[in-house]
Amino acid sequence: MTVWSKRRIFETLEKGEGDDRLSKRFDLFIMTLILLNVMAVILETVESIYVQAPLLFYYFEIFSIIIFSIEYVGRLWTCTYFERYSHPFWGRLKFVFSIAGLIDLMAILPFYLPLLFAMDGRFLRMMRLFRVLRIFKMGRYSTAFNLIMRVIKQRKEELLITLTIVLVLLILASSMMYYLEHEVQPENFSSIPETMWWGVATLTTVGYGDVYPITGFGKVLGAFIAILGVGIFALPAGIIAAGFESEISKRIKRKGRK
Amino acid sequence: MTVWSKRRIFETLEKGEGDDRLSKRFDLFIMTLILLNVMAVILETVESIYVQAPLLFYYFEIFSIIIFSIEYVGRLWTCTYFERYSHPFWGRLKFVFSIAGLIDLMAILPFYLPLLFAMDGRFLRMMRLFRVLRIFKMGRYSTAFNLIMRVIKQRKEELLITLTIVLVLLILASSMMYYLEHEVQPENFSSIPETMWWGVATLTTVGYGDVYPITGFGKVLGAFIAILGVGIFALPAGIIAAGFESEISKRIKRKGRK
Amino acid sequence: MTVWSKRRIFETLEKGEGDDRLSKRFDLFIMTLILLNVMAVILETVESIYVQAPLLFYYFEIFSIIIFSIEYVGRLWTCTYFERYSHPFWGRLKFVFSIAGLIDLMAILPFYLPLLFAMDGRFLRMMRLFRVLRIFKMGRYSTAFNLIMRVIKQRKEELLITLTIVLVLLILASSMMYYLEHEVQPENFSSIPETMWWGVATLTTVGYGDVYPITGFGKVLGAFIAILGVGIFALPAGIIAAGFESEISKRIKRKGRK
Amino acid sequence: MTVWSKRRIFETLEKGEGDDRLSKRFDLFIMTLILLNVMAVILETVESIYVQAPLLFYYFEIFSIIIFSIEYVGRLWTCTYFERYSHPFWGRLKFVFSIAGLIDLMAILPFYLPLLFAMDGRFLRMMRLFRVLRIFKMGRYSTAFNLIMRVIKQRKEELLITLTIVLVLLILASSMMYYLEHEVQPENFSSIPETMWWGVATLTTVGYGDVYPITGFGKVLGAFIAILGVGIFALPAGIIAAGFESEISKRIKRKGRK
Repeated sequence: MTVWSKRRIFETLEKGEGDDRLSKRFDLFIMTLILLNVMAVILETVESIYVQAPLLFYYFEIFSIIIFSIEYVGRLWTCTYFERYSHPFWGRLKFVFSIAGLIDLMAILPFYLPLLFAMDGRFLRMMRLFRVLRIFKMGRYSTAFNLIMRVIKQRKEELLITLTIVLVLLILASSMMYYLEHEVQPENFSSIPETMWWGVATLTTVGYGDVYPITGFGKVLGAFIAILGVGIFALPAGIIAAGFESEISKRIKRKGRK
Repeated sequence: MTVWSKRRIFETLEKGEGDDRLSKRFDLFIMTLILLNVMAVILETVESIYVQAPLLFYYFEIFSIIIFSIEYVGRLWTCTYFERYSHPFWGRLKFVFSIAGLIDLMAILPFYLPLLFAMDGRFLRMMRLFRVLRIFKMGRYSTAFNLIMRVIKQRKEELLITLTIVLVLLILASSMMYYLEHEVQPENFSSIPETMWWGVATLTTVGYGDVYPITGFGKVLGAFIAILGVGIFALPAGIIAAGFESEISKRIKRKGRK
Repeated sequence: MTVWSKRRIFETLEKGEGDDRLSKRFDLFIMTLILLNVMAVILETVESIYVQAPLLFYYFEIFSIIIFSIEYVGRLWTCTYFERYSHPFWGRLKFVFSIAGLIDLMAILPFYLPLLFAMDGRFLRMMRLFRVLRIFKMGRYSTAFNLIMRVIKQRKEELLITLTIVLVLLILASSMMYYLEHEVQPENFSSIPETMWWGVATLTTVGYGDVYPITGFGKVLGAFIAILGVGIFALPAGIIAAGFESEISKRIKRKGRK
Repeated sequence: MTVWSKRRIFETLEKGEGDDRLSKRFDLFIMTLILLNVMAVILETVESIYVQAPLLFYYFEIFSIIIFSIEYVGRLWTCTYFERYSHPFWGRLKFVFSIAGLIDLMAILPFYLPLLFAMDGRFLRMMRLFRVLRIFKMGRYSTAFNLIMRVIKQRKEELLITLTIVLVLLILASSMMYYLEHEVQPENFSSIPETMWWGVATLTTVGYGDVYPITGFGKVLGAFIAILGVGIFALPAGIIAAGFESEISKRIKRKGRK
């Protein structure tokens, strides 16, 4: 029989390494539970599926909350084994406000909050939305998630500069289009912020077709902006994509070398 | 007169090499037949063309089935000349379940199945769809097809990672948009899976315009997702495209060296 | 006074080199005439502009035809100075069927044909369309045009392979979508060729929004095709674009070195 | 107390260097004022915000004009300290017509012009539009703006060549589409310039869906143009984007070395 020391619990909760089979099984269990949770949140919104077993969804949610709560308390108790969280009080507080800690908290808090405070319907619905964010708990185990964090950190400066350029282009394009189209289409181009919806749809080339210029000058301006601007709007997303590709190819090379 | 030994039939069925003119002519005949089949499937659906000669399409289908059936039986009989299929029984079974074997079977099975089993209309229609898959029989002869297979095999891991990222982004974007738009557009954003249709249309920048956010918050979220997300959705397709380009340039260099 | 020898006319017609001021002026005159012709074809279709001076457009067309005809006859007469067209008869015939020769002929023939043969309205309109192709006459003088030709020639093989892949993907995607959507949207997905219009609009991410799947299976297939296919459809255009970029940067380096 | 010499004013107006705290504070003040101005122009167009405090917007505009006017006069007075503007008259005139000088003038002139000349409503509205261009005053301080200018200067030639190619492709595609679709859709394809709106929307893949071919030939041409043309239309924007990326990565390397 395993001795359930605090140390053992810490090791079990953290990602399993070497031949710690118990810890690895626990990881698999939590990952499965997270994926089932995300699927439940998604399927719950499909009327035809939900009505067939509303209680199943409810009991599964209760079950998940119990597990995730125990996991959270366990992590909070044992996090002092990490050097950076070693202080009994300040270390634990630091863990609570770390990214991983907040993600774990966000996974259970939306369940407890309505029990403690009276809340209106709009807020309750938003709480339900937070359940889908449990997917971020996968970050502890998944490569893809770690990639995302690393890429955004690495390319922070490029992203800020290109987002500034994108914003300036969006403001200029939308202001000009607003002045050209406002009069003939007062509903679609009612204000500059509203016109920015057209700007984003055009410059990302999504082009839903809900708003578009109809005056001659508006079309000329729109054509000009589209030809010169679409590449610039592709910059931030392109930088993230380039970051991913380089990280992925690094990872594959590293694995290949082993 | 050629001696119609099993060996000779094997050589004729396989892609002709050197100056085996008979085998090369047979290849050309099968390739033409495949292309005509694909054209027939396409043109059959054009009412104005089909009504002019429905029997022609029917007889051509019978003719094709006969040829492809003989070809399949021939291959099954002679495949033992390949080392990996050399066992009279297990080798042939292995051939039947190889990719090339399944493609050859799929080209004729949809014709025989309804003769053996009673089938409803929906299933019969699906069987007709399978006829277009005869195009994959070209894989034995065409470079383009071989390229596709090789690229997907080579980039399997990159594809899996990027598809995971794409899926996570799609789930997050669609869940948030669902909670923001569901109330005001209950038909278009009826559930999270339904909202994913919006997500794919937006993040691939196809933007049909059948669904789009109309609330203020929905538009802000949509704009934010579009600016940061479009590049990420381009990753899987970009990896396949990059794989093609490198394979094509390799191929051209190799030919140039000759 | 210049001696109007055949040699002198040949030199004047061809692109002026060195300090042959007459030839350079003639080039400028022809280039201006071509650009004015293209503008005339474009502006003629704007009702409000055309009605103000229909005769101006007519006289300008007559004037252009006279100049281009003289130029064509001149080129035909003097082309024997080129080594490859040196034979009085076969050389001239070769010139007539060369690309440059055909472009020059196409610029004037649509005017003469209706004078020689009775033609119906539909054909006459198509003849007018050919007038815009006079823009190709710029090819003799413009770098941009020479780039286009060189790029397409250089990348011929890549273009063929990628266009094959694009076509196969389009056939498969459209056939599957046709079988899934035909029943519920018989007007939009009336046949496989008709469904290809959806296929091109989706895979190029243009997404007009005139046709899109509405069934559940259709949307799932559409989403899958869009995520994996958009990069592949970008291949032919990407190859042409890459060809341009490399040619342009070569050209700029060459100029920089001077 | 600082001696308010002409020299001191010049230093304060220009971008602060070293430990000139006064000049740096003035820079920050002007940058904040510019950003608030841009926000004011944007928010003013939102009816629900504007009606709450129309006077606030008016007084803020007056305040901005006073500051920007003083700044402009100050710059005009002290610009002679720059070597290239050193001549008391011709130097100042040169400054007025320099890019920076014109941007500064454009920020205030739209306020004074209507006071000097009688103007109709249309012109007055256009004057308001010019207020958003105050954002260009940021160019003196912002890296992003300097990047834009440098990139466009560096890639001028590539941009010109690719824009020519884009224009020729647009003319050819739109002319052909006009002749194919004009008869069945006389409102959408009323003229070649009008058809260019379809051309831009298609070739940039924006695809609003307000205009698209409906005839068979029109769809075939549209599909062909989309497959071969979308990459070419991406060239100018791609060149600008590539220019940005190389400039940004240079900048980051330079900073990293410090």
